[in-house]
Amino acid sequence: MRKEELDFTTIEQLEADTGKLCEMAAGLGAPTWQERKEKQKPQCKFGEEGVCCRICSMGPCRITPKADRGICGADVDTIAARHYLRRAAAGSAAHSDHAREMAHALLKSSADSQFRIRDEAKLLRVAAEWGVESEGRDVYDVAHDVALHGLNEFGKPFGALDCLKRATDERQRVWREQEIEPRAIDREVSTSLHMTHMGNTADAPTLVRQSLRVGMADGWGGSMIGTDFSDILFGTPTARATEGNLGVLEDEMVNIVVHGHDPAFSEMMVLAAETPEIQEYAKSAGVKGVNMAGLCCTANEVAMRHGVRMVGNFLQQENAVLTGAVEMMCVDIQCIFPALGPLTDCYHTIFVTSSPVARIPGSKYVQFETETAFDQAKGLVKEAIDNYKNRDKEKVYIPKSKEEATVGYPCEQIILELDDVTNSHEVKTVNGATEERGSYKPAIDAIRAGVLRGAVAMVGCNNPKVRPDYSHIDIMRTLMEHDILVVTTGCAAQAATKVGFMNKEAKELCGDGLKRVCTLIGIPPVLHMGACVDISRMMLLATGIAKDWGVDITKIPVVGCAPEWMSEKAVAIANYVVATGLDVYLGIQPQVQGSEQMTELITEGTRGISGAGYIINTDPDELVKAIIDGIEAKRKLLDI
Amino acid sequence: MRKEELDFTTIEQLEADTGKLCEMAAGLGAPTWQERKEKQKPQCKFGEEGVCCRICSMGPCRITPKADRGICGADVDTIAARHYLRRAAAGSAAHSDHAREMAHALLKSSADSQFRIRDEAKLLRVAAEWGVESEGRDVYDVAHDVALHGLNEFGKPFGALDCLKRATDERQRVWREQEIEPRAIDREVSTSLHMTHMGNTADAPTLVRQSLRVGMADGWGGSMIGTDFSDILFGTPTARATEGNLGVLEDEMVNIVVHGHDPAFSEMMVLAAETPEIQEYAKSAGVKGVNMAGLCCTANEVAMRHGVRMVGNFLQQENAVLTGAVEMMCVDIQCIFPALGPLTDCYHTIFVTSSPVARIPGSKYVQFETETAFDQAKGLVKEAIDNYKNRDKEKVYIPKSKEEATVGYPCEQIILELDDVTNSHEVKTVNGATEERGSYKPAIDAIRAGVLRGAVAMVGCNNPKVRPDYSHIDIMRTLMEHDILVVTTGCAAQAATKVGFMNKEAKELCGDGLKRVCTLIGIPPVLHMGACVDISRMMLLATGIAKDWGVDITKIPVVGCAPEWMSEKAVAIANYVVATGLDVYLGIQPQVQGSEQMTELITEGTRGISGAGYIINTDPDELVKAIIDGIEAKRKLLDI
Repeated sequence: MRKEELDFTTIEQLEADTGKLCEMAAGLGAPTWQERKEKQKPQCKFGEEGVCCRICSMGPCRITPKADRGICGADVDTIAARHYLRRAAAGSAAHSDHAREMAHALLKSSADSQFRIRDEAKLLRVAAEWGVESEGRDVYDVAHDVALHGLNEFGKPFGALDCLKRATDERQRVWREQEIEPRAIDREVSTSLHMTHMGNTADAPTLVRQSLRVGMADGWGGSMIGTDFSDILFGTPTARATEGNLGVLEDEMVNIVVHGHDPAFSEMMVLAAETPEIQEYAKSAGVKGVNMAGLCCTANEVAMRHGVRMVGNFLQQENAVLTGAVEMMCVDIQCIFPALGPLTDCYHTIFVTSSPVARIPGSKYVQFETETAFDQAKGLVKEAIDNYKNRDKEKVYIPKSKEEATVGYPCEQIILELDDVTNSHEVKTVNGATEERGSYKPAIDAIRAGVLRGAVAMVGCNNPKVRPDYSHIDIMRTLMEHDILVVTTGCAAQAATKVGFMNKEAKELCGDGLKRVCTLIGIPPVLHMGACVDISRMMLLATGIAKDWGVDITKIPVVGCAPEWMSEKAVAIANYVVATGLDVYLGIQPQVQGSEQMTELITEGTRGISGAGYIINTDPDELVKAIIDGIEAKRKLLDI
Repeated sequence: MRKEELDFTTIEQLEADTGKLCEMAAGLGAPTWQERKEKQKPQCKFGEEGVCCRICSMGPCRITPKADRGICGADVDTIAARHYLRRAAAGSAAHSDHAREMAHALLKSSADSQFRIRDEAKLLRVAAEWGVESEGRDVYDVAHDVALHGLNEFGKPFGALDCLKRATDERQRVWREQEIEPRAIDREVSTSLHMTHMGNTADAPTLVRQSLRVGMADGWGGSMIGTDFSDILFGTPTARATEGNLGVLEDEMVNIVVHGHDPAFSEMMVLAAETPEIQEYAKSAGVKGVNMAGLCCTANEVAMRHGVRMVGNFLQQENAVLTGAVEMMCVDIQCIFPALGPLTDCYHTIFVTSSPVARIPGSKYVQFETETAFDQAKGLVKEAIDNYKNRDKEKVYIPKSKEEATVGYPCEQIILELDDVTNSHEVKTVNGATEERGSYKPAIDAIRAGVLRGAVAMVGCNNPKVRPDYSHIDIMRTLMEHDILVVTTGCAAQAATKVGFMNKEAKELCGDGLKRVCTLIGIPPVLHMGACVDISRMMLLATGIAKDWGVDITKIPVVGCAPEWMSEKAVAIANYVVATGLDVYLGIQPQVQGSEQMTELITEGTRGISGAGYIINTDPDELVKAIIDGIEAKRKLLDI
C-alpha cells in the first residue's frame, strides 16, 4: 500500500466523533469536561505562572508588581520552586505507591491463584540482581523474598536504591557526585515535603536538585519495581495485534471498560471474562458475549499482555460513557475523573471503584483484595452482563473509528526483534566474536549510519490546554517523516493507535530510512512500550543503547517528549528522564514561568547536574522542529 | 504579692516594642513582615476558602458561582479535602523528618562525643518497650539498636507504629476499628500524596480519615520518636528558671540567637559557648561574654534543658535582628523566614543555615554533621565573637521587656511535682494501697473535686491573620481565671513567657482553685512542656490521666487549643490530637470553609471516628468561652 492509499483515521475525524458525542450529551444534560473547561475560563494567572503560595495559613500569598515577596519573605523563585518540587514528590509518591501494591501482590503470589509467577526468567534475573538466593529453591519462596526486597526499597534507612546499579557507570557516578542518588523511595517523598514546608528551603537550585532526586525515586525506584513485578506476575508483554479507539465498543455485546493504572485489577477482570463460567453466564443471559476494553494506562497494560482492545486515552474517558454502550466502567487508581460519578448517573453504566486510595463519590465500591480478586472480578463481570438489559438504545452512539495496532515492545521484545535481523547486521564485538545477539547494536548501527536519525520517547497525558491528541499526532508524524523512530507509552501511545501509527502499514508515512528499518524488522514505526509506569523501560532502553554504543547516555540521539502532559506523575517522570541524561521536550508549561530563575534552572541549570534539561514550546510545530534540531545536534557532536 | 501589684509585661507593651523596632527598620529600609502583609492585601479568597485546585496542569481550577466543578470534575468538597490532607501530610513529613535526623544522631552516639546518652533510664524504658535487649549490654549498643528500631518505624513494610501501644486500650481499639492506625510513617505521607493525586480519591470523608491517619504518623510516630530520642541524647527536661522576651539580649555581650526546631544543632551551640576555650576566646577578644538566646521551638528545647533564655517566638524572629544587637542568628529547620536573608543584609548579623533541608539564600551555609558538630559550633561561636566589633551602635535598640519563667515540665517532671504532694492527697488505689506515687491521681483528684476544672493544651504558632500573641494571652488569662490549668508548647509557650504567665507569681492571676494548686505544688499556672514536636508529650499526659482515672480519653476535661496556628505541622498536630480523642479549638480557619461538607466533617464528622473534632472561632473571646463551655460539658457528662 502506498502512502496516498492509507486511510487512517484523522485528527479531524476524532474530533468529529467527540463533537457528536458531546452534542448528544448536551441533549441529555450529561456534563462533559469540554463544558467545564469553558466555565473555568479565565484560569488564574497566578497559579498558571507558579507565583501563588498556599503552603501556610498566613497566606495565600502571591507575587504581584506591588508585592515581590510573600509574608514570610518567600520570593517568586522560592514559591515557584517549592510548588514544582511538591508536584514531583506527589508524582513519585503516586507511581511508587502503585508499585508498593504490586509488591504486596507478589508477596501473596502462589501457584494455585491468579497471582502466580508468569515470567520466571525475569523473577530469577531480578533475584540475582538483588542477591536473593534462587538456586534449588521453590520459585514462590524466591518470589516472596524478591517482593520483600522490593518493599524494603521504600523504607530502608540506609543506602541508595538498588535499581540504580542498572545504569551506566557514568550515570551512577554523576548521581553520586551530584547528590541526587535517591535513598528510600518514601524518604525522598517525605524529605521533599519537609524541604518545602514553611520556613525550610527557599533556595531554588536546591529545590530543583531535590526534584531530580525524588523523580529518580520514581523512575529508578517505584516505577522500575512496579514494571518488573507486573511482568513477573502477569507476564512480560510481547508483540501482539489489537485495535484502538471508540469503535472497539460493540453494539451487540456487553462492554466493560477497565480504566486506571494498576494492572492487578484489570488483569483479574480480563481473566475472569475469559472463563467458561462467565461465557456460560453470558450465554444463559442471552447476550452475545463480553467485550473487554481498556482505557488510559490500564488499557496499555492489558493490550500489551492480552491484546485487549483500547477504547481511548485520558480525555476520552467520558466519551466511552457517552456512547451509552458501556455496561460497566471499572477503575483502579489515578487519572480517574471524579466527573464519572455524576456522568454515569445519566446512563445505565455501572461505575465501579476498587482501591482504598481512589474512592470516588457516585461509584459502587468493591475493595479489591489479592486473595479474593478473581472471584470479585467474576462477580463484577456477571453484574455487567445483568446490566446489558438496561442499555437504552436511544442513548447509544458508537463512533465507527478504530485502527489496527501491533503493541507490546518492552526492551525484551525490541531485543528479540533486533536479534531476528542480526545476521544482516554482523557486529565485531570486543572479544572478537562476529555476531552478537541480545544487544541493541543493530539499532545503533542504523543510527550511526543515519538510516535512523535517532529515537524519541513520546509520553504523557492529554491536556485541554492544547488541542487534545493533536500535538502527539502532529509531532509523531513529523518525526516519522524525518526517520526518527518513536517509542511511546501512556496516552501518547493511544493517540498513536487512534490514527494508525502502530499499524505496520504506517511505515508508508515514514522517511525512507525508517521505512526500511520497519520493513526489515517487521515493526510499526511507533513502538508501544506500555503504561506511564513503563517509562522505566525506556530508561533501560536508553541505558542499553548507551552501554552497547559505549558512549555517555547524554550523547546518544535519543530524547523524551511530553507534548500534552497534565499530571504530577509527569513532573516526576520529566525529572527522572532529565536526571538520566535525556533532554525532555514539553508542550505544556511547568507552571514556573513567573520565575526567571526557575525557568533558567529547569531548561539550563539541570544541564550542569545531569547533562540534560527541558526544552519548552507550546506550539507543536515548533516543538517538533526543536526535537529534530536537538537530535541532529547530538549526531553532529558524535560526528555521525 | 497580690494581683494588682503584679506588673507583668502587657500585650500593649509588646506591641509598642515591636512598633518602635519596625519604625527603626523603616528608617533603614529593612523589610519586615508587617510591611509585606500590607502589600499582600487583599489575599486570594479562593485560596483562603480552599476552593482553588493546582494539583494538575489542566488547572488551576476554582469553584465559582458559574463553575461548580474543576475540569476533571472535582467539586468543592474534593478540592478542599485534598488540599487539607496534603497539608496534614506535609506537616507530618516535616516533624517526622526532624525525628529521623534525631534517630541518625542517636545511631552515631558515643561516650566520647557530645552526642552521648544523657538519659539512660529513658533509653532503657524505650528499649524495653520495643523489645530491644539491654540486660548486660553496653549502653551504646542498646542506643544504636533503639535508633535502628526507630528508623525502621519510618519504612517498615508491615504492621502499625509501635508507639501506638502507649495509648489506652480503648484508643488502640478505636484506631484499629476505624482504620486510622498509621503504618510506616513515610508510607502514610506517600499514600496521602497518592490519594490526592489527580484522578484518585475524590471522597471528602475518606480524605479526612487519611488526614487523621497521617497526623497519627506524626503524633504517635515521628514526633514521639523525636521527643524520646532528644531526651535520651540531651536529657529529659526538668523544671528550671529562665527569662523570655527581647530584653534577654545583652547590650554588652555577644548575642547569638539559635532558631528553628532540631535541638541537635542548638545543643552543640549552647555547649560550645560554655567551653573554657570559648570563654577564653571571648576574653582575649575583649568582650564581656557570649549570650546565647533561643527563638521559636529551638528556644523551647534549650530553655528546658539548659535554662537558655528565650528571645521570642515565630513572628518575633525579625524583631531579634531589628534590635541591631544580634551578632549571629543560627538556624536549623522549619519556620525560618526566608526574609532573614535580605533582612540580615541590613545589619551586621551573620545569618547561618545548617541543614540540607533548609537552604536559604543570603545565608552562610555550614552543613552540620554529627561527627563534627561540636567543632563546627565552636567555630561559629568564635565567628560571632569576632563579629561583635561590627555592631553599629546607631542601629541598636534592645527593648527592656522580659519576664522570669520556670520552664521544663515534661510528663516526668509533672509526675515528680505531683509525687511531692502525694502525702496530702492520699489515694485509695484498686489494690488497696493507700499511697500511689508516680501517678496523675493527685491532679485527677483536684479535677474531680472541681478545684481544677480541667486542662487546656495551648499550642501553635503566631499568625498575622490575627493580632499576634493576643489570642494566646487572652485565652490563657481567661482559662487561668477559670481554674483551668494550661500546659503549653511552641510559640504559645513563648507568648505566655513574655507576659509572665510562667512566673510562679502568676498564680495571683488565677481563680482560687488553680491558685491553691499552684501554691501547693509550687508550679506556675502555665506549664511549659516543650517544642511543637513535644505535643507528643501532651498526648502521653492525657493518656496517663485517662489511664489513672479509668475513663476514656474523650471524656476527660482536657482539650487542645491552637488560636494562632499557621503551619502545615499544625494541621498534622490538630489531626492527631483529634484522633487521640481530644477536641481542638482553632482560632484560624483551616481554609476549607468554601466546602460545607468539609466544614461539617472536621467539626462533627470526625466525632464519629475518634470521638473528637474541631471547634473553630476566629474571635479569641468567643473561642475561650467555647473552651470553658466544652470543659464544663465534659465535667457534666462525668457527673463531677
